[in-house]
Amino acid sequence: MAHCVLCDTDGGLLIHRAPKWRLIRATDTPAYPAFYRVVWNAHVAELSDLSDAERHECMDVVTQVERLMRAHLAPTKINLAALGNVVPHLHWHLIARFEGDSHFPAPIWAPAQREPLPAALAVLSSKLPALDQALAANFY
Amino acid sequence: MAHCVLCDTDGGLLIHRAPKWRLIRATDTPAYPAFYRVVWNAHVAELSDLSDAERHECMDVVTQVERLMRAHLAPTKINLAALGNVVPHLHWHLIARFEGDSHFPAPIWAPAQREPLPAALAVLSSKLPALDQALAANFY
Repeated sequence: MAHCVLCDTDGGLLIHRAPKWRLIRATDTPAYPAFYRVVWNAHVAELSDLSDAERHECMDVVTQVERLMRAHLAPTKINLAALGNVVPHLHWHLIARFEGDSHFPAPIWAPAQREPLPAALAVLSSKLPALDQALAANFY
Repeated sequence: MAHCVLCDTDGGLLIHRAPKWRLIRATDTPAYPAFYRVVWNAHVAELSDLSDAERHECMDVVTQVERLMRAHLAPTKINLAALGNVVPHLHWHLIARFEGDSHFPAPIWAPAQREPLPAALAVLSSKLPALDQALAANFY
């Protein structure tokens, strides 16, 4: 791999780095401030490239992040996805979705259905520092 | 829940039914014939609603399906997603993606970038009976 953005950079705001994975908050999705990613540190493409123990660790982390997102944000739904078509380096998207967000109920990759509401984004964003801290403390 | 399509129906072509989950092949995505779903049988919304043992079972199944999809289809990438905004009943999408498919490298929920190639779809579809059989045998 000459260049992989997830080998070369954290990929967002670093919340916690563990030996095998890291948790970042995405900073490239303004309509979705409550968007975290669990990035596997090694350059592997697919979930099934991990050993059983690694996969369990990866998905346990995803689940713990999801639980804290639910506890802090009470989203309508959590969206989980490991796509990697553009960056084939295993990373899990965790996105807090709300009725009335710019794409709901469509996936965030579909055409937007409406403008995001600045007030709703501001309320959501105001909860992120406490969530970031809870996530960091959870994995510390 | 008055009506949940995944409580009321299998949700596609049934490949295997286990006590806690079922594997179906999607029949509603003509541009993506190699599209499977692992559906949790109980009506729960989020992965983190499962017990640890249930979650491990669920993700181990997803991984086994992914491995057989890779072995039979050699896709460019596997896409995994649990969204559930429309049907908040836990189900994992497993989609075999190929360079040149109608959305690649975008997610399948984005606007299509090109028409699917009938010849490519025909080749892919021709491999599905053997994959279905291998999946069923794997879980038998």
